[in-house]
Amino acid sequence: MPDGLVLSIDGMGGDHAPDIVVEGVDIAARANAGGVRYLIHGDPARLAALLDRHPAAKAVSEIVPAEKAIGMEIKPSQALRQGKGSSLWNAIAAVESGQANAVVSAGNTGAFMAISMFRLRMMEGVHRPALAARWPAANGGYVVILDVGANVEANGEQLVEFAIMGEAFQRAVSGAARPTVALLNVGAEDQKGHEEIRTAARLIREAGVDLNFRGFVEGDDISKGTVDVVVTDGFTGNIALKTGEGTARLVGQLLREALTSGPFAKLGALIAYPALKKLSARMDPGTFNGALFLGLNGLVVKSHGGANGRGFAAAIGVAEKMARSHYREEIAANLKRLAEAATTIAAEKEVG
Amino acid sequence: MPDGLVLSIDGMGGDHAPDIVVEGVDIAARANAGGVRYLIHGDPARLAALLDRHPAAKAVSEIVPAEKAIGMEIKPSQALRQGKGSSLWNAIAAVESGQANAVVSAGNTGAFMAISMFRLRMMEGVHRPALAARWPAANGGYVVILDVGANVEANGEQLVEFAIMGEAFQRAVSGAARPTVALLNVGAEDQKGHEEIRTAARLIREAGVDLNFRGFVEGDDISKGTVDVVVTDGFTGNIALKTGEGTARLVGQLLREALTSGPFAKLGALIAYPALKKLSARMDPGTFNGALFLGLNGLVVKSHGGANGRGFAAAIGVAEKMARSHYREEIAANLKRLAEAATTIAAEKEVG
Repeated sequence: MPDGLVLSIDGMGGDHAPDIVVEGVDIAARANAGGVRYLIHGDPARLAALLDRHPAAKAVSEIVPAEKAIGMEIKPSQALRQGKGSSLWNAIAAVESGQANAVVSAGNTGAFMAISMFRLRMMEGVHRPALAARWPAANGGYVVILDVGANVEANGEQLVEFAIMGEAFQRAVSGAARPTVALLNVGAEDQKGHEEIRTAARLIREAGVDLNFRGFVEGDDISKGTVDVVVTDGFTGNIALKTGEGTARLVGQLLREALTSGPFAKLGALIAYPALKKLSARMDPGTFNGALFLGLNGLVVKSHGGANGRGFAAAIGVAEKMARSHYREEIAANLKRLAEAATTIAAEKEVG
Repeated sequence: MPDGLVLSIDGMGGDHAPDIVVEGVDIAARANAGGVRYLIHGDPARLAALLDRHPAAKAVSEIVPAEKAIGMEIKPSQALRQGKGSSLWNAIAAVESGQANAVVSAGNTGAFMAISMFRLRMMEGVHRPALAARWPAANGGYVVILDVGANVEANGEQLVEFAIMGEAFQRAVSGAARPTVALLNVGAEDQKGHEEIRTAARLIREAGVDLNFRGFVEGDDISKGTVDVVVTDGFTGNIALKTGEGTARLVGQLLREALTSGPFAKLGALIAYPALKKLSARMDPGTFNGALFLGLNGLVVKSHGGANGRGFAAAIGVAEKMARSHYREEIAANLKRLAEAATTIAAEKEVG
């Protein structure tokens, strides 16, 4: 691997690729301090034409030709069988071979996860990968929530693995020294929830896992920002995230309807326009774009499929910060403590 | 039971009881066509003083003295042991004895559910009760979502019971002839989700349960109003509902901050005030207050603990509409079909 950071980019993934991809690289290239290079995989003619219009991106990018692109509707199994040679496949392979420090794609989520797992394999000490997203919080920052959809189920030990990885993600991206962590539940009391969650809470406490652990939080604590990292299984996390997104969209729609409902409403909105524009930027999902697929031997960042250039640049920012962090070394000690405690508890159960 | 409807009201339950309770009865009494009487259980002196100030409520209410009230922090097990003689207990007992058609309380949720289950027992053909809430949707109406917290887990057959009860609830309250129903999942495809959900979908289709069933929906479909009834287990439903509430609160807070952030923003907000006020009413959780505790031999309506008088009146409205419906007769045929199909499938499994 050369000096400096290399990010591998799927040039053809997403609803508005390759345009927003090159635009995103351009925004990121102008924003970061330099020293980052980009391998953009995809259709060389289309990418070259776009790079000609984005000189900042062109100066730090190399086009890696790929013969095809994976569609947004293709199933993961199909992507595994037919994906070889695609921009997505090659972008991931560049991380596997050590050419790049991380991969970013706005493409097909299922295909991205399946090929990443197949090529990069699980990290030692991790049983299941997790998808970690960021969500705006009332305190002006954001909350990391995981798993938001990599697995449908998770047992207690796996939930603790998610907690360990999510905390390191939050630390690397936000710079917070000791992010607080909690498990998502239907109440704050110890006896609430199902067995997996209670086992996870017990494991964190008894295993001596080094986390700033705050027990259980409820659904409304996500937006409140009660803790920095919210841990749950992929079924609940996916539904919580999408319910929150749907609610934000509904409120936004009702607000637009209200502010265009008559001449006075329109005049008021016009006068308050700068403030409303700032609000809209704050709620823009692009601001917190970039979900991390955690637990693999390599950094895998998923951009929202409908992201614009600014959103894709945010996802690149996540990849860059993670690649500059010592994420893997940092979680190793915690994963080891967890594995030892889980073995002991399993042995006790057998004896008992 | 006398002619006309009788609603049993816990006068002392909720953060702002008994004031908002009497206020709510007053609003409801002025709104409904008449013929509804209220039994208000609680401290006779305080209730009498409040009724003196609310003549519409006074004209149709009877105070039923109760010697104590159940606090908001008491655990369900404690409420079962010590709750006898409380306003909540007596309010439920009035439904059990046939004096009243439904009970409404803004009090302690856990205590309300535990005492209701203990006194009223499960309906025949229902294995577990469910808490059903309403959520505003983009189409101007609302969605019924259940279970939002009565049970942590639910198997396939229980999810179908929830679907049957939730559909009847939506029909009774909204007046829609054929509400659409779906199961909450992480994707719309048949193979998505965990076993319980896939079993539920199969049971609805194979058992010939009479529902306008639309398969699976995702979290963002709740606010979109893609279907009229969204069915899930109590763990996921509770977290989804609270995540949505938290998001709506966050957006509201950011909007208030934006519209008070400077002189122009304030002026704009002032001019657009009537439109913003309408928006705020539309998003007011009180509008859709009144969760139904389904599956018991009696109608049990839970008001939000922090509800104001208008919110409590909305919960009374739910109780009234359900009491005027033929809810129990309507779900009997579907529950029977489900039980037969579940038995057949279980037998097939044993043979297989």
